[in-house]
Amino acid sequence: MKAKFVCIEGGDGAGKSTLISKIEKHFKINGIDYLKTREPGGTTLGEEVREVILKKRGTTEVNPRTELLLYEAARAQHVSELIAPTLANGKTVLCDRFTYSSLAYQGYGRGMDLKWITELNHWATEKTEPDLVIWLKIEPSEALGRVQKRSQTNKLDRLEEEKMSFHEKVYAGFIELSKKEPNLFLVLDATVSEEALFSQLLKHPLWIKHFGSLK
Amino acid sequence: MKAKFVCIEGGDGAGKSTLISKIEKHFKINGIDYLKTREPGGTTLGEEVREVILKKRGTTEVNPRTELLLYEAARAQHVSELIAPTLANGKTVLCDRFTYSSLAYQGYGRGMDLKWITELNHWATEKTEPDLVIWLKIEPSEALGRVQKRSQTNKLDRLEEEKMSFHEKVYAGFIELSKKEPNLFLVLDATVSEEALFSQLLKHPLWIKHFGSLK
Repeated sequence: MKAKFVCIEGGDGAGKSTLISKIEKHFKINGIDYLKTREPGGTTLGEEVREVILKKRGTTEVNPRTELLLYEAARAQHVSELIAPTLANGKTVLCDRFTYSSLAYQGYGRGMDLKWITELNHWATEKTEPDLVIWLKIEPSEALGRVQKRSQTNKLDRLEEEKMSFHEKVYAGFIELSKKEPNLFLVLDATVSEEALFSQLLKHPLWIKHFGSLK
Repeated sequence: MKAKFVCIEGGDGAGKSTLISKIEKHFKINGIDYLKTREPGGTTLGEEVREVILKKRGTTEVNPRTELLLYEAARAQHVSELIAPTLANGKTVLCDRFTYSSLAYQGYGRGMDLKWITELNHWATEKTEPDLVIWLKIEPSEALGRVQKRSQTNKLDRLEEEKMSFHEKVYAGFIELSKKEPNLFLVLDATVSEEALFSQLLKHPLWIKHFGSLK
């Protein structure tokens, strides 16, 4: 089986981390050699950039252009140092967020030009594209309830703290993106239980197309 | 007098820091309200990005695309948070390196597409352009002698350590850039003494055009 590049997208509280753990377990059971990574980050330099992006800065605003360029910088390093060589070695890559996050958050969320973001994405990644994008669909207001529960123990970062109207634009953006590329986007109803979510994934035609009907 | 945006460009060992100190003294004597800043850096976020860029990483290569995007990210923040508001307040800005460094180092030095760098520069700065670019012209081999003297006390960063062939391409790049924009580029012969360099500057028609014949 050819190495696949799988990206997971979804807002805070959608259940991304839990789903990723389940996919990892599934890959292990079925002997699929994989690498798990995340954006922004994934490399030493990328993790340093991640800190710069997510840090809270009091009254100083991070310029939206700066934000996008930092994501793209981390991404360029991520692809060249890690993702492309891993895929070339025949290993599947499981990536928590990728180029579609920039389109959804900076494009739909902040209103930046989608064509320009696409151009930057292409340039930064040298057109390395995912085979599959799994989007965890859940209304931001519902996901927020989960985040608030979690936030009693974890601190929210700068982007998690954004206003609800921002997260609603991101959500609408993912709906549009997934409609534009139905053969790439695997949309899951993320309002259900962890178990039901995972079983939706395994039964989904796009998942089966890439991974077959594994146990 | 309208606030001017002055950038200083030049390789390591060209005498940039000394010249900047002299210009500052000159501005103070003549009552010119100014702000001194630098790239990459100038803002809290920018200085954090500077560290990421200049850090030595052992055997890990920083991808050239990553490098350019990091410079542009720091620049976008620098312009929006500091340079544009300062100029709007009627204050002259004296900036150690700016957009032309990206063209010279990443474009001519690393061979990246000049048109694309220009596009990124324009986007990151929202077309904030300098009024004057002072370039300290000195052959890299000659400048290297100065850097080596200095390096007995200071450590060289990742970019200062680049090969001589890289610095020669950057030098040739600045020559081309200065020829393309003779009304913007003030080229100084930086092989002379600090005093002679400064006096060249004060007598230069482009300097006089912007600042008159001050003491």
